[in-house]
Amino acid sequence: MVVGLLLAAGLLSLGVAFAFRQRVLAVSVEAGAASAEEAHRLRDIASAIAEGAMAFLLREYRVLALYMLGFAILITLLIDDPMTPVREGIYTALAFLCGAFCSVLAGFIGMRIATHGNVRTAASARISLSHAFRTAFHSGAVMGFGLAGIAIVGLVLVYLGLDALLHGVERRTVMEVLSGFALGGSSVALFARVGGGIYTKAADVGADLVGKVEAGIPEDDPRNPAVIADNVGDNVGDIAGMGADLFGSVAESTCAALVIGAVAFPENLPALLFPLAISAIGVLCSLIAVLLTRVQTEADVENALRRSLLIATGLLAIGVYISSQAMLPETFTIFGQQYTALGIFFCVLVGLITGLLTGIVTDYFTSNRFRPVQQLADSARTGAATVMIGGLAVGYTSTVIPALLLALTAVVGYTLGGMYGVAVAALGMLGTIATALTIDAYGPVADNAGGIAEMGGMGAEIRKRTDVLDAAGNTTAAIGKGFAIGSAALTALALFSAFITRAQEFAPELDILHTTSLLDPWVLAGLLIGGVLPFAFSALTMRAVGRAAFDMIEEVRRQFRTIAGLLEGTARADYRQCVDIATKASLREMIAPGLLVLGTPLVVGFLFGLKMLSGVLIGAIVSGVALATSMANSGAAWDNAKKYIEKGYLGGKGSEAHKAAVIGDTVGDPFKDTSGPSLNILIKLMAILSLVFVPFFVRFSLQLFQ
Amino acid sequence: MVVGLLLAAGLLSLGVAFAFRQRVLAVSVEAGAASAEEAHRLRDIASAIAEGAMAFLLREYRVLALYMLGFAILITLLIDDPMTPVREGIYTALAFLCGAFCSVLAGFIGMRIATHGNVRTAASARISLSHAFRTAFHSGAVMGFGLAGIAIVGLVLVYLGLDALLHGVERRTVMEVLSGFALGGSSVALFARVGGGIYTKAADVGADLVGKVEAGIPEDDPRNPAVIADNVGDNVGDIAGMGADLFGSVAESTCAALVIGAVAFPENLPALLFPLAISAIGVLCSLIAVLLTRVQTEADVENALRRSLLIATGLLAIGVYISSQAMLPETFTIFGQQYTALGIFFCVLVGLITGLLTGIVTDYFTSNRFRPVQQLADSARTGAATVMIGGLAVGYTSTVIPALLLALTAVVGYTLGGMYGVAVAALGMLGTIATALTIDAYGPVADNAGGIAEMGGMGAEIRKRTDVLDAAGNTTAAIGKGFAIGSAALTALALFSAFITRAQEFAPELDILHTTSLLDPWVLAGLLIGGVLPFAFSALTMRAVGRAAFDMIEEVRRQFRTIAGLLEGTARADYRQCVDIATKASLREMIAPGLLVLGTPLVVGFLFGLKMLSGVLIGAIVSGVALATSMANSGAAWDNAKKYIEKGYLGGKGSEAHKAAVIGDTVGDPFKDTSGPSLNILIKLMAILSLVFVPFFVRFSLQLFQ
Repeated sequence: MVVGLLLAAGLLSLGVAFAFRQRVLAVSVEAGAASAEEAHRLRDIASAIAEGAMAFLLREYRVLALYMLGFAILITLLIDDPMTPVREGIYTALAFLCGAFCSVLAGFIGMRIATHGNVRTAASARISLSHAFRTAFHSGAVMGFGLAGIAIVGLVLVYLGLDALLHGVERRTVMEVLSGFALGGSSVALFARVGGGIYTKAADVGADLVGKVEAGIPEDDPRNPAVIADNVGDNVGDIAGMGADLFGSVAESTCAALVIGAVAFPENLPALLFPLAISAIGVLCSLIAVLLTRVQTEADVENALRRSLLIATGLLAIGVYISSQAMLPETFTIFGQQYTALGIFFCVLVGLITGLLTGIVTDYFTSNRFRPVQQLADSARTGAATVMIGGLAVGYTSTVIPALLLALTAVVGYTLGGMYGVAVAALGMLGTIATALTIDAYGPVADNAGGIAEMGGMGAEIRKRTDVLDAAGNTTAAIGKGFAIGSAALTALALFSAFITRAQEFAPELDILHTTSLLDPWVLAGLLIGGVLPFAFSALTMRAVGRAAFDMIEEVRRQFRTIAGLLEGTARADYRQCVDIATKASLREMIAPGLLVLGTPLVVGFLFGLKMLSGVLIGAIVSGVALATSMANSGAAWDNAKKYIEKGYLGGKGSEAHKAAVIGDTVGDPFKDTSGPSLNILIKLMAILSLVFVPFFVRFSLQLFQ
Repeated sequence: MVVGLLLAAGLLSLGVAFAFRQRVLAVSVEAGAASAEEAHRLRDIASAIAEGAMAFLLREYRVLALYMLGFAILITLLIDDPMTPVREGIYTALAFLCGAFCSVLAGFIGMRIATHGNVRTAASARISLSHAFRTAFHSGAVMGFGLAGIAIVGLVLVYLGLDALLHGVERRTVMEVLSGFALGGSSVALFARVGGGIYTKAADVGADLVGKVEAGIPEDDPRNPAVIADNVGDNVGDIAGMGADLFGSVAESTCAALVIGAVAFPENLPALLFPLAISAIGVLCSLIAVLLTRVQTEADVENALRRSLLIATGLLAIGVYISSQAMLPETFTIFGQQYTALGIFFCVLVGLITGLLTGIVTDYFTSNRFRPVQQLADSARTGAATVMIGGLAVGYTSTVIPALLLALTAVVGYTLGGMYGVAVAALGMLGTIATALTIDAYGPVADNAGGIAEMGGMGAEIRKRTDVLDAAGNTTAAIGKGFAIGSAALTALALFSAFITRAQEFAPELDILHTTSLLDPWVLAGLLIGGVLPFAFSALTMRAVGRAAFDMIEEVRRQFRTIAGLLEGTARADYRQCVDIATKASLREMIAPGLLVLGTPLVVGFLFGLKMLSGVLIGAIVSGVALATSMANSGAAWDNAKKYIEKGYLGGKGSEAHKAAVIGDTVGDPFKDTSGPSLNILIKLMAILSLVFVPFFVRFSLQLFQ
């Protein structure tokens, strides 16, 4: 019965996504366009973007397929133990492939609708602002509900499949095998977030530097060969990247909770499936919230987005309370400690609230409605150096409250629900994901719509409307990034708990539960090494953007030089070549950071064992959360300080202050769109890898010098 | 007998310092000056710098005295237990005041000689390069040996005093009370490093921005009202700041080792005093190394400095081996684990080698003889934004090897010597402090000499010689900073071990030794909070520099505006006013970061208890080491990239690349001279506070919600 309800909720979510898709597709480009010729032009541009996006995806999928196959074999080889009746390795590899497929599917759906929605948003902007908002918002909703639905349906089906294949095997093992699903989803996120992040910034910087600065043509000008790649990048980075990141978080938190839950109540199926119920209820709450979202005036856009998140949060709290009472046993025991259903409810609640508050804090530090960014803009008057220092200081300061909230969540979670509590707290935070992702995906669609309006020559009036939509999207994007980091940190803690739980059950003789002390030299060494990993990883991704952007710059310069009549507007730029270069460069440049993420836990666990690995995981979370938050928020603060000056303050566009702010923004771009968000993947992927490979570490670790 | 030998070594060190002082003072300014008039001019400038330095010190001492008195009372109130026969609180407060006095004395001696040495170095530069080098180097040696001597003599005398006052009390308690000495030294370091760091950069930025950029007069020009403050700042930041920082490290590591040693071998006085012997032997080795240091040619300066460090390191390894065999019992036990004297020797050795290797790595990432900085300079061709990103990436990358070395040291230390092993590893690293500090203090003396030569109009030939000396000083300054961070991290680990040891002995019922698990919610929450402290602290110090620099800029502008004839060179600038403003601003601006450092451990320990405090301490070390290393090295890399371009590469001075590099250097200044080094104080001071206040936490902690 419970399984049926979960499946129904997942399918409902998919149905909702499909319904929104039909509404978006029903918007006619012709109806909004001023003329048949304009409609044709808009469609032309949109299909170039869509083609570029598909070209990137297809090439990425080819690399991804090879990687997935290779990694599936690795999983089988390292985890499988032919001596045992359960071929854990093979089934884990299967779950891994399913997870990867689901994540790819979710990303694909999101990219498709985004590339249909952008042109329709642009066209309907001629009709009215609210019409355009609705189109963009519904496009976002396709992504939000589609992804949530795929996550729920995928997890339930794979669980059912494994349960059938592994009948007679204890539940704990089934759930451990299921965690391969999360590893698959998270591996895709590595490609989408890191590769996508490099793509989007390489294209952006390439387009801006040669087009705007060197050739002196405006942003989104069709004469710029990189302009399509730039618009593709918005989709690649913000839609596919953010989506895969959050898909991974949901899958990982759910699997973490299931692994721990299988130790707590192995025979109580409703209780066991409670983690999935949080996501299922979240879908229902998000549906209500999205349906209630309407926009009338210009000033209303940001509030509308924010209101929908608040409604979803409030409803979810009620829903989780009821389901926790209905599904969980009144009291239960994990590793000798007793916990209550009510306690678990509070764990979910604290996660939910932490997510919301993190968003508010992020807004405060990154929006130019508040003092930090206004002061930052002010510091631009004394030049680029003070802007740099000021922006870094804003980012550094903004780490404090999110860290306190995380600490609070960890304390409440562990105190009221042990390891299980932390895992469900993460799910609480992710409960509103359908809404959160709707808002997130809305942003790039609106951004693209602006680009299409400009390239299609729809006029200043229309461009102003799309700018209103875009500005709201920028604010919510910053909030979304804060949310993504917070949930990544909680997810990583949840995975760490599951890792320890699995290790304790798998090898009770190691007693990992009681030996990961701060005073153990291996734990301490692990912490110190884990602490620098985010710095090393950021250095790699920052340099990667630089090199990829350099390739792009060279190509744009080449086209300006060799294509006669391009700058005069009489010849067409070779957009495809730019897309191709960004695609290749991003895939090439993600190899080094990818190896760091995948290699570190495997090498540390193999050479030095579980204790040091524990230290590495926590060390990476400790400094990673701080660094990721500071990078994302510094970047957004620089961006909005520049926009604040462009509004006309402090001398406005073209002033010395503006020039200084532009330098800040340029530094901030890879901070907020590549390096910062990529750290989410670092901390989560290392943790899920450790969880999945526990049997390998226990059986084969050399435990050098220990 | 052992005590006598230690005291003798300390007094010898002081004697050596005095002898070097005499040699420096014997250098005649008149002999080097071209004319009596030039000599007079040089003396004039030097005395303005000396006066400014004294003015800063006196005002700082006044604030310091109040703070010390207040804190001594706080110690007495919070630690003292009138019910016990031993009035621990009162004696700890006494030791605290002694430690503060010793640190102040060491800083004072260093500042005095630096302000005598600078003018003599400038004057003797006319005679020969090697003469000038010797003068600057000997000035540095006064600081190096003076400080090491004061540390040894101070610790021994206070130990003897406490032993006499507390006779009949167990050794453990005596050593715990003695740790108040380290707290005193470290408190002075807070003022010297943080306040001094703010001073030096405020003066530097103020002098550069208004003088060089706005008024267009060269660096070190006597018409610039901030020029004396700028030269004072070099002494305040690099002499007094670095000195107090390292004095703190020596005192803290020694006390940590003594506290733990008192548990291991309470009745074996030679073994107990082994930590002091490391420092004493270090003085002898340093003396040999310094006496062997000679310079003939220009290219030889950097090598000479580096060679002296290598000699000292090699000799110390031999000396420690002999003394460990002579003083330590062959085997001993701490908390049930058995360790050997040979193991302890390896602990010291690994610390010693880590210090050396950290220096080499720092050199690689920050000197423009190597690729990282050359590539960074190259990135200046594409503008300030790429310089920023490149410099941050260099800093981030440079954190990896030092962290691996620290991890290795922690593993070797704990494995071969338990808590004691880590403490003596820190002492090993600090064993060569007299040499290291000689080299460090040499830098600002040479820098000042260049300033005096310029201001005194000694001509291009002389200025070229002082520039050679200064350039070598810059390289070694970067190495010195890497060394200071590494030793701070090890010292903090040593203090953490001592803190745990004391807590375990004081309240065995808490069993802190076995409960600080990564899975404990309070430990985890502490780690997360500790992890963001370095970021919050850096934001505070970065902003502080900005505000203090702003005060300075306003004052320099005011003087240019109101003093008629100043720019024409016919009127004299009011240097004193600038010195005064920098002094006031730096003392005002260190309140907020100071409160953060002092308040956090006391509040966390009081409200939440020892477990969470443990997490905070380790969390701060984990992210603090990474952030401090990256800030110091990014800053030095930017500085040297700029200098590389100024040598004539990539278009040389005045090119677009140079302008971009100057922006990088301006951002890097507070990074490398204020925020980065201040993090050393953050992690050490929090740890020594926790150690000293263990009785308070155990007796009064509210342990909220636990």
